[in-house]
Amino acid sequence: MKKITIINGPNLNLLGKREPEIYGSESFEEALETWKSKYDGLSLDYKQSNVEGELVNYIQEAGFEGSGIILNAGAYTHTSVAIGDAVAAIDKPVIEVHISNIYGREEFRHKSFISPHAAGIIIGMGMQSYALAIDHLLGRS
Amino acid sequence: MKKITIINGPNLNLLGKREPEIYGSESFEEALETWKSKYDGLSLDYKQSNVEGELVNYIQEAGFEGSGIILNAGAYTHTSVAIGDAVAAIDKPVIEVHISNIYGREEFRHKSFISPHAAGIIIGMGMQSYALAIDHLLGRS
Amino acid sequence: MKKITIINGPNLNLLGKREPEIYGSESFEEALETWKSKYDGLSLDYKQSNVEGELVNYIQEAGFEGSGIILNAGAYTHTSVAIGDAVAAIDKPVIEVHISNIYGREEFRHKSFISPHAAGIIIGMGMQSYALAIDHLLGRS
Amino acid sequence: MKKITIINGPNLNLLGKREPEIYGSESFEEALETWKSKYDGLSLDYKQSNVEGELVNYIQEAGFEGSGIILNAGAYTHTSVAIGDAVAAIDKPVIEVHISNIYGREEFRHKSFISPHAAGIIIGMGMQSYALAIDHLLGRS
Amino acid sequence: MKKITIINGPNLNLLGKREPEIYGSESFEEALETWKSKYDGLSLDYKQSNVEGELVNYIQEAGFEGSGIILNAGAYTHTSVAIGDAVAAIDKPVIEVHISNIYGREEFRHKSFISPHAAGIIIGMGMQSYALAIDHLLGRS
Amino acid sequence: MKKITIINGPNLNLLGKREPEIYGSESFEEALETWKSKYDGLSLDYKQSNVEGELVNYIQEAGFEGSGIILNAGAYTHTSVAIGDAVAAIDKPVIEVHISNIYGREEFRHKSFISPHAAGIIIGMGMQSYALAIDHLLGRS
Amino acid sequence: MKKITIINGPNLNLLGKREPEIYGSESFEEALETWKSKYDGLSLDYKQSNVEGELVNYIQEAGFEGSGIILNAGAYTHTSVAIGDAVAAIDKPVIEVHISNIYGREEFRHKSFISPHAAGIIIGMGMQSYALAIDHLLGRS
Amino acid sequence: MKKITIINGPNLNLLGKREPEIYGSESFEEALETWKSKYDGLSLDYKQSNVEGELVNYIQEAGFEGSGIILNAGAYTHTSVAIGDAVAAIDKPVIEVHISNIYGREEFRHKSFISPHAAGIIIGMGMQSYALAIDHLLGRS
Amino acid sequence: MKKITIINGPNLNLLGKREPEIYGSESFEEALETWKSKYDGLSLDYKQSNVEGELVNYIQEAGFEGSGIILNAGAYTHTSVAIGDAVAAIDKPVIEVHISNIYGREEFRHKSFISPHAAGIIIGMGMQSYALAIDHLLGRS
Amino acid sequence: MKKITIINGPNLNLLGKREPEIYGSESFEEALETWKSKYDGLSLDYKQSNVEGELVNYIQEAGFEGSGIILNAGAYTHTSVAIGDAVAAIDKPVIEVHISNIYGREEFRHKSFISPHAAGIIIGMGMQSYALAIDHLLGRS
Amino acid sequence: MKKITIINGPNLNLLGKREPEIYGSESFEEALETWKSKYDGLSLDYKQSNVEGELVNYIQEAGFEGSGIILNAGAYTHTSVAIGDAVAAIDKPVIEVHISNIYGREEFRHKSFISPHAAGIIIGMGMQSYALAIDHLLGRS
Amino acid sequence: MKKITIINGPNLNLLGKREPEIYGSESFEEALETWKSKYDGLSLDYKQSNVEGELVNYIQEAGFEGSGIILNAGAYTHTSVAIGDAVAAIDKPVIEVHISNIYGREEFRHKSFISPHAAGIIIGMGMQSYALAIDHLLGRS
Repeated sequence: MKKITIINGPNLNLLGKREPEIYGSESFEEALETWKSKYDGLSLDYKQSNVEGELVNYIQEAGFEGSGIILNAGAYTHTSVAIGDAVAAIDKPVIEVHISNIYGREEFRHKSFISPHAAGIIIGMGMQSYALAIDHLLGRS
Repeated sequence: MKKITIINGPNLNLLGKREPEIYGSESFEEALETWKSKYDGLSLDYKQSNVEGELVNYIQEAGFEGSGIILNAGAYTHTSVAIGDAVAAIDKPVIEVHISNIYGREEFRHKSFISPHAAGIIIGMGMQSYALAIDHLLGRS
Repeated sequence: MKKITIINGPNLNLLGKREPEIYGSESFEEALETWKSKYDGLSLDYKQSNVEGELVNYIQEAGFEGSGIILNAGAYTHTSVAIGDAVAAIDKPVIEVHISNIYGREEFRHKSFISPHAAGIIIGMGMQSYALAIDHLLGRS
Repeated sequence: MKKITIINGPNLNLLGKREPEIYGSESFEEALETWKSKYDGLSLDYKQSNVEGELVNYIQEAGFEGSGIILNAGAYTHTSVAIGDAVAAIDKPVIEVHISNIYGREEFRHKSFISPHAAGIIIGMGMQSYALAIDHLLGRS
Repeated sequence: MKKITIINGPNLNLLGKREPEIYGSESFEEALETWKSKYDGLSLDYKQSNVEGELVNYIQEAGFEGSGIILNAGAYTHTSVAIGDAVAAIDKPVIEVHISNIYGREEFRHKSFISPHAAGIIIGMGMQSYALAIDHLLGRS
Repeated sequence: MKKITIINGPNLNLLGKREPEIYGSESFEEALETWKSKYDGLSLDYKQSNVEGELVNYIQEAGFEGSGIILNAGAYTHTSVAIGDAVAAIDKPVIEVHISNIYGREEFRHKSFISPHAAGIIIGMGMQSYALAIDHLLGRS
Repeated sequence: MKKITIINGPNLNLLGKREPEIYGSESFEEALETWKSKYDGLSLDYKQSNVEGELVNYIQEAGFEGSGIILNAGAYTHTSVAIGDAVAAIDKPVIEVHISNIYGREEFRHKSFISPHAAGIIIGMGMQSYALAIDHLLGRS
Repeated sequence: MKKITIINGPNLNLLGKREPEIYGSESFEEALETWKSKYDGLSLDYKQSNVEGELVNYIQEAGFEGSGIILNAGAYTHTSVAIGDAVAAIDKPVIEVHISNIYGREEFRHKSFISPHAAGIIIGMGMQSYALAIDHLLGRS
Repeated sequence: MKKITIINGPNLNLLGKREPEIYGSESFEEALETWKSKYDGLSLDYKQSNVEGELVNYIQEAGFEGSGIILNAGAYTHTSVAIGDAVAAIDKPVIEVHISNIYGREEFRHKSFISPHAAGIIIGMGMQSYALAIDHLLGRS
Repeated sequence: MKKITIINGPNLNLLGKREPEIYGSESFEEALETWKSKYDGLSLDYKQSNVEGELVNYIQEAGFEGSGIILNAGAYTHTSVAIGDAVAAIDKPVIEVHISNIYGREEFRHKSFISPHAAGIIIGMGMQSYALAIDHLLGRS
Repeated sequence: MKKITIINGPNLNLLGKREPEIYGSESFEEALETWKSKYDGLSLDYKQSNVEGELVNYIQEAGFEGSGIILNAGAYTHTSVAIGDAVAAIDKPVIEVHISNIYGREEFRHKSFISPHAAGIIIGMGMQSYALAIDHLLGRS
Repeated sequence: MKKITIINGPNLNLLGKREPEIYGSESFEEALETWKSKYDGLSLDYKQSNVEGELVNYIQEAGFEGSGIILNAGAYTHTSVAIGDAVAAIDKPVIEVHISNIYGREEFRHKSFISPHAAGIIIGMGMQSYALAIDHLLGRS
């Protein structure tokens, strides 16, 4: 039984109702069910918080066991040294994902404090960004 | 019955005892009572937190009903992409207010991640910044 | 009898016909009549010029008597040290107003040479930006 | 029969012998054979050039038919407006891939002229960056 | 018999089918025929390449005889020191032209390495930018 | 009868005696007479001022009728948001012209607040910059 | 009985197991016991959080009584205006400490929002940074 | 009979009543009388305007005869390319003066568009800055 | 017998009479006597120079024997690559100290060429900055 | 008997033979003799050094008695925080002078660390820059 | 028999006729013959291209055998990450040479993407820059 | 008999014992002896100082006679306008040399105030940088 933890950051709890022209109209819970049913022998843990420090907590908790973390830190991607430090501090690989193409948006979204420490980065493919990350982490373990 | 939510950010719980030469000597609770008694038919909801992500939570909770939000995000105004995203994600108008004239202070206080998404911005008139915002939101609804 | 002077800068004489998607379709004269009729005992003086130095003149003339100035310096807001100096040089309070949300527009409109010297700043509420400033100056005197 | 075109930029012809601590010791041709044998009904076209303008040619040739392009423009990623323009000019989706984590390297590798126009971006997973892009394009068509 | 050489840079071979809202729907060959038929005694030579160095070659070849060069270096305008050096190195006048208004587009298109060495610059008038340049070079010779 | 208005900015009244190595030795009035006599059915209106705001006035006055404006705002090109706003506010096309090649001079002359709103830009061909602009506007109407 | 409060920021709960080549292999709790046993009549209070706003809370709680605060805000040192404001708002002295030499690491760790308001700064001496701060605060009170 | 023209820029008409801690309490007219009475055979012409373009006019008018100009362009010093161009365009020497030490004030006052073209610069000595400039111009002629 | 060398840079010879509101009114010699009498078995060597290169000499001389150096390079801290190189070149630890809080002063004092090579940094505690550094070096040896 | 000290910085000992097109062909000693003979009751002290720290020494020595210092720190003007600090630390007024117009030369010569602390600044009038400074200091005492 | 490859970049094929005040009047072929005749047992291979990617090809071809490469990448020196990467990817030493003193020319010529990977850099000595590089490579092998 | 002066800057007196992984393990005196014995008829003068101004003195002394100067100003290369001015002020050619590849080190070592005035620049070839400079100066005289 393999375990992967998905950690979502601020405002991603609004997926499906917030700015659908950017983020699509599917809620994250619906996508999660699809992925769970697709893979046997995969335990898919899911955390979401709007609080930067709670994301640090989740990363620390999941960071020393299992197959890895899929992290969409949302807006904190661009401002949080603390989350970047947490990713650097743990043992397990972290795949950074983004739903929208952050490079087609405001300049301040082009900078990531997580990327230098990530084991891989997948950007701009909607919900499928997560799915590719799952594939990658399963192939890696 | 109209509803307006006032959301205050970090260190604004110290109003009245913190640096009175910048912020004045009135506590926020005293001002709040004045406003409540001034308007009939107005429900004035008040939230304060020192935690960035809790401010995101409050904005999401108040953002889809009522007449609007009056937001003084304090120091997070200048650093929080997450709060700016929350303001952009909700339906109701947000009036950004500041007690002190942030343009007469340090350079890093001249940048706001909230302003591009605000329905209006009122700066530097002490507690009356909030009062004008209330007037404006009542006139709008 | 209280006196407030409204000073408008370049291209604001085109209000109502210039780019209505940004500035609205009401002419400034129409709004002015509304405000005059609303307040008893208020003398509302109005000046407009496309010339930076004439705005300096108007600020100097109105700056040592009456209840204060409401200043929308338009494009000169972002480039004029001279107008900023005039605001700093006079005795009466100046409320800086903008019709559109300048923070949702080009980067060069995010800088104001007037703001550090203003007694208050009101942005992005259309013609009501002026109305709130009148309310504020009347309450102040 | 679906067709995907992989286009590799400068110095990627040295894969396997150039700086293996960054790029790994597998040659691209070996990886290509693996992918071809893995998928039935997939035509995998491969182009490599050290010349910026030839990459523009390849993108234009593959850009109006087939399932899409997988583009690793190597060093030109960070300097070529011309390649970015070619990606914007064509009809088919382009997935930008990088073998190494460019965000853990020099600052000038953090900027991409391709990203704003890419249909997806996959970074830092070695040869598997290409494999995930193939999976994604097959799922899309 | 006077000779003028028109040299077009990357992606301009797609004129007429690429992003017509920016570049118009006329192909360059159609325009070229019009100009040729309009002027007696004018030899209009035409080169296009997506390769930066080939543009350098063309500039060198045309740069020491004839009435001058009309150069639209496209994306290389903004990045190519080599093309700027070639323009500086030759004897004949070079008129820099652009079809679209590059100052209404991304910031990186506002910089030209060719302009300091150009004998004239014509921007933003569609295909007529070339026509005015022909008029000018004919008047000059 | 078509009407074109030429508007010249600061210090251009000195043309012919100021720095002839940059601006040539012809006075503007001499050139104007040449152009007037060349075109039948063309009314060529000419304004010059050293005052930024008067240039705004001239642009507003000529901006809603006739075939267009030819604007050489001189030094204000590089500093005046107000003139740029005026060009954006009017209905008629504005061709921005410069006598000298501003890109071969000081860095601060490389920035134009007018260009993003201009219908065309012609630079560095001496007095012929104006003549080409006339040709273009006549062809356009 | 004197009271000093030590407040540690994000990821410092991992001390001893996180990146020992930077932070050493001693856990903070071990160091704390040593200091407590060394000084009679000293009450040493200890708080740690990964949440920025909770650090603001701790600073406010400890900021109006006792001998002072020793603050290692970790990653928030470099990004948190809110913590800097809290340090400025309270009455008691704050000594800023860092275990590692932040000036030998990434550029973004060279900026501190706390330093301008700190009563002293001690950097790069491992756990002894805290010990020196205790000595200093005891000598001060 | 020698002639020197003193040209003062915006807000200098308020000298003596505006911010006396920066500019002193003497009005400019008083100082002017002192200088006139001190020198025989000196015609001292005085111009002041708050309008940038009128300063350009005054410089052009005085720039081709007499012994030179003493120019305190006030706030326009830091923003006006047009005034700098006028100083460059005329024949007579221009001494740039400032009453206050502009280098002890805001950063934007450290830049002068006039200085590169001035025949001399005298800063920070109050009204005596003008007196030294008169001495210098008299010695030069 | 242990040996520590204190090296002071420019203008620190004026301590006690220069700007006492920043640096205090105690002369350095008085403080030095206090420290010498406090520690048995400590040889405290003291050097001061206003010459950058002499500080390099002192660092080289003390850098290969004894317990370490306490270095307050004063103004050279912010400009001297040579002193930074000297600190990097020697064997013994260097503790960088500052009397005032350099982060509460001008921006150019926030940069240190010494810090990246220092074994520890102590800032803003007046003369006690040196005392803590002595304690630290004695504990280290 | 009044005393003024002139302090010259690096390479000014070459005056008269170094780059005469910038600095003139008069040696400083010749000028000095002229000034000495012109004023009765004036003791004119002269120091020159190519060593930054010796200039600090000279400023300290002359800084607490006499009528003031005339300082041309040459190249150190633009790089020396130490000399700027020395000027700020002493009691007597310092007039900063420059022979050439530093604003017409390289950008790095436009910044002065001395100006914010100078009692006056005189630039670009050749040797007469010193003479005007003497006049000013004599008038001041 | 030792082999050295000289690779020249864009516009260097014009040596001898292009801007002789910068590059001298000798053609490269003439210089090459001199060097060949001077050294016995030296095979001197020569490549020139105006195409960036062909220079990458030449570097790759010569980079794994012989005594080393002498590379004057001309304008591509300042813009080509691809050439810098090629130099880093090969085994043999590369000496970067420039004929003119690039530091006395435009700012954009002060940056080299090749320098960090070069085994040596020789600048500004005309054709002798190549000769010294040959001497060096012969001494090295 | 020809004379060349070698001038070395700060910390180069430590060559052979300071950071041998960067600078090699040979002392400068050993290398000097080798060069002296290699050339007949060459007088090789050697100066070293850690003091910036003494380097200015040495350059002035050697700058008006002999065959030229070989200057390794070490850390002062990157900060000293004074040394750059001295090189510009003298008559004889100066070859700037560096032992290590300064472009592979910290960013602040990429800037040289000497280069624009140097007759040649040789970088990164260890002690042989000096040897090539001697060859060049002998060939030149």
